[in-house]
Amino acid sequence: MLGLGLIGGSLLRAATAAGRTAWGYNRSSEAVDAARAEGFDAGTDLAAALARAAATDALIVVAVPMPAVEAILGAVAEHAAGCPLTDVVSVKAPVLAAVRRHELGARYVGGHPMAGTAESGWSASFAELFENAVWVVGAEDDSDPQVWAAVAGLALECGAVVVPAEAGEHDDAAARISHLPHLLAEALAIAGATGGDLALSLAAGSFRDGTRVAGTAPELVRAMCEANADALLAALDETLEVLNAARLQLAEQRSTVDLVSVGYTARRRYEGTGRTEITGIAPGAPGWVQQLREAGRAGGVLRSL
Amino acid sequence: MLGLGLIGGSLLRAATAAGRTAWGYNRSSEAVDAARAEGFDAGTDLAAALARAAATDALIVVAVPMPAVEAILGAVAEHAAGCPLTDVVSVKAPVLAAVRRHELGARYVGGHPMAGTAESGWSASFAELFENAVWVVGAEDDSDPQVWAAVAGLALECGAVVVPAEAGEHDDAAARISHLPHLLAEALAIAGATGGDLALSLAAGSFRDGTRVAGTAPELVRAMCEANADALLAALDETLEVLNAARLQLAEQRSTVDLVSVGYTARRRYEGTGRTEITGIAPGAPGWVQQLREAGRAGGVLRSL
Repeated sequence: MLGLGLIGGSLLRAATAAGRTAWGYNRSSEAVDAARAEGFDAGTDLAAALARAAATDALIVVAVPMPAVEAILGAVAEHAAGCPLTDVVSVKAPVLAAVRRHELGARYVGGHPMAGTAESGWSASFAELFENAVWVVGAEDDSDPQVWAAVAGLALECGAVVVPAEAGEHDDAAARISHLPHLLAEALAIAGATGGDLALSLAAGSFRDGTRVAGTAPELVRAMCEANADALLAALDETLEVLNAARLQLAEQRSTVDLVSVGYTARRRYEGTGRTEITGIAPGAPGWVQQLREAGRAGGVLRSL
Repeated sequence: MLGLGLIGGSLLRAATAAGRTAWGYNRSSEAVDAARAEGFDAGTDLAAALARAAATDALIVVAVPMPAVEAILGAVAEHAAGCPLTDVVSVKAPVLAAVRRHELGARYVGGHPMAGTAESGWSASFAELFENAVWVVGAEDDSDPQVWAAVAGLALECGAVVVPAEAGEHDDAAARISHLPHLLAEALAIAGATGGDLALSLAAGSFRDGTRVAGTAPELVRAMCEANADALLAALDETLEVLNAARLQLAEQRSTVDLVSVGYTARRRYEGTGRTEITGIAPGAPGWVQQLREAGRAGGVLRSL
């Protein structure tokens, strides 16, 4: 585990608890000291951690924030270029591009556990973070089936369900259901506060729920949204079109019929979403990547390999 | 009570429970039959209900949806023009304008109990609906202090706290904290569903909470939003400006800093909003309306008269 923050730390705990031999690297000694004090195998020597991975062909997990990914990949390319490689960064296409720039693509399969808390750092980490969470595992045309199975296996052992998705499709989906909600919540909070104390004293459930995630630490919201800037921009533009059309209908016809009827149908569809189980697709079989992607697009999840 | 739906029905129950002599009118006999079966005083004869009000100088409460207000006010003007008059419609400036058109302004003080459920009709009504709810009571320059005290007294007896506000200020505030949240929730639901089953299967808390009220029955959302079209249009335009600025910063600087930092501050302000009690302002004393409005603007509530 390269990085022992909330996700990397929780992953070191969960993998160890699942009986794996796992060790962690972190740049700052604070997290390393705390992990060691709890009996975990951790250090601040990146080259040493990678040399050990290279010697055992261990699965390397990049668990640092997006701005630190480039430097970590440089070290991986130098010390452990042949190892199977994954990551847990919340955006997938930019990581894939960076991996390819470092010529590490052959044994890379990206990942994104959709799990987190408002807290961060090793001190917030816990082994159960991934239980029943969705863990997206990257399904690219050139994905290595053995590495794919290794990454999906890690996710399943940590208690997650696996959703296969191509990097760009993941980023588009995440923009819609995770990053755009944050931008709209911020905008709604601003609209309420601009109304002053009177408006805030009248606010009830719709405002409270609609602005909840605007209470998340600004640096976390920014890191998440800005790392996925391209996909978020596309989703935001689409939503601005929807809202502009609604504005026009409200101004010209004093009606909200189009927005409200389509929005209601959309929410009902979401409420009715059930997870079907993906079965019978073996990584490496003919057409396996395309089949997994199709199944993921249809809302399916893998619960075992 | 003219109208025995969720609000009017609950008000008939609550006023009766508080020891008042109260009777209700409803156009359809279904609600009337149900109310009578429970022992309430109700009928389908509007002229008779109003003649009784005129004979006793009773406080008339208009509790019909906005589209039916005009006809009800016509009957009030015909049969009980001298009675103190209020309403519980969710928008205030259009009702005030209609009241003035019918020359009923002298003894009218508007009201809006900020209470409701997803259900509607007499069968959904209950006496405790208003407990600890905010009940906006209209404070206009020409408000009659006796009627004002009567309307505020009814709200307090029903268990609500009273927020004094001028009609236009109420509508602006309601647009920001109640109607705009619905439009944004609908737009977010659409953005998620457009992402297909993959996006919906990845959706977690931010999407669930941000779209919750898009599950409200479309006709209720439309009635609420469209009745407040003018104020909602202003709030929507303001929010479109905020989102367009955010879009520009995201596209040009790949940053969300302005939106996220201002939004976070706004949500924190909302979380820190406490209700101060308004005391020492007697309806009728010099400057009372202006003082009550100022206190309401500052987030104050009346808990007694």
